[in-house]
Amino acid sequence: MNLILLFDPDFISPNRVRLGGRRLSHIQDILKPQLGQGLTVGKVNGLMGQGTLVATGNDYLDLDVNLHTHPPGPLPLTLILALPRPPMLKRILFSAAMLGVKRIIVLNFNRVEKSLWNSSALKTQVITEQLILGLEQAKDTVMPEVILKKGFKPFVEDELPALIKGKLALVAHPDKNSAKASLSFPSALSGNPDKDITLIIGPEGGIIDYEIELLKSAGCHPIDLGPRILRTESVLPYVVGKLL
Amino acid sequence: MNLILLFDPDFISPNRVRLGGRRLSHIQDILKPQLGQGLTVGKVNGLMGQGTLVATGNDYLDLDVNLHTHPPGPLPLTLILALPRPPMLKRILFSAAMLGVKRIIVLNFNRVEKSLWNSSALKTQVITEQLILGLEQAKDTVMPEVILKKGFKPFVEDELPALIKGKLALVAHPDKNSAKASLSFPSALSGNPDKDITLIIGPEGGIIDYEIELLKSAGCHPIDLGPRILRTESVLPYVVGKLL
Repeated sequence: MNLILLFDPDFISPNRVRLGGRRLSHIQDILKPQLGQGLTVGKVNGLMGQGTLVATGNDYLDLDVNLHTHPPGPLPLTLILALPRPPMLKRILFSAAMLGVKRIIVLNFNRVEKSLWNSSALKTQVITEQLILGLEQAKDTVMPEVILKKGFKPFVEDELPALIKGKLALVAHPDKNSAKASLSFPSALSGNPDKDITLIIGPEGGIIDYEIELLKSAGCHPIDLGPRILRTESVLPYVVGKLL
Repeated sequence: MNLILLFDPDFISPNRVRLGGRRLSHIQDILKPQLGQGLTVGKVNGLMGQGTLVATGNDYLDLDVNLHTHPPGPLPLTLILALPRPPMLKRILFSAAMLGVKRIIVLNFNRVEKSLWNSSALKTQVITEQLILGLEQAKDTVMPEVILKKGFKPFVEDELPALIKGKLALVAHPDKNSAKASLSFPSALSGNPDKDITLIIGPEGGIIDYEIELLKSAGCHPIDLGPRILRTESVLPYVVGKLL
């Protein structure tokens, strides 16, 4: 936790917050500040700054906050992700929030197990928890938006073309058929100087031919990530490394 | 498992292997091949090719193997890593093997908990297991070397300078003092056309000033990874993305 993320209900006066629960435990057990010491804080979707420890109780502590600094700019990348299993979904949501992705679309694919759509990992509260942890790791305050799309075809045919209009949309997946015609990264980026990109990551089991063709028809380009097959959760930082 | 890694004891004749245990379970439960079907296999530190299912028993299966393809070339990157907690160590070893890193040096730092050096995660068998899983994910056969260094100062003063001589050594860690003088990535790479790099990732708690100064004296350059603080396990794919 490199930044303590603050929410409206935390404020007990305009410049003072009272924290309990997870944040209290972390501050007490890990950061161990003295009274008067400053901690890095930020208000969700707002400014970052310092929180000075002014009081502690059994189950709370109070910080006087002074917010003055803008969070880092958003990463110019929309992530479209095949729904993975819950542990990987959590890690990817954390990672996406940490890396500065501000829009994450979780999409169905043929090789996504249908039962995963009933997982408790898709509850808003569980998703938000990972996003908060990612922002706190990164020192950012701007909460990403997560959109669930259970219909592959209607999304790709009816919504995706407008979403990626004038931008570069890349499908990063080791697909034998698409690899032949795939872009390598430098050429993918050379025509896209402002680097506003939509990145599509398919399921571990692969994107089927029908889906690749539909994505191509919608304007997406398969890209070659190199000779090694990366696990889903490593594809995102790998691609972001290329962009930044 | 995109490739089944084979070892000498698996061979019951020059071109036939008998597999049990984890690989048998994975093949039976996930890949579900028919007799006569080919699977992607590779011999550790050797060639890759096809394994054709020729027999199955209760607790084994036999593949006829035909090895003909070289594994992908090594990633020109040596990773020097502060010893992390066991779950993260496992993920990073997996990730490094998957990305093609062939030399990993696990190093002590001031902010590494000393008790971690007694962890069972440092046993050769536990380390090797993660490396195998990483190679099987990536489709690679060349086993990385993992070296444990419990003394920071003797390693950095006596061994590191020779290790990085004529190469580029980068310290990737959000350190406030070093950030001021740090290189950004494009400039770090511009003077290094063959891209043979040593990447040093410090502990989550940070690299202390004394350590940064010692690393700089040994010829290492602090680098700026951008405005967000990345978690250790994401730094490696992020940096590799920049290199490939």
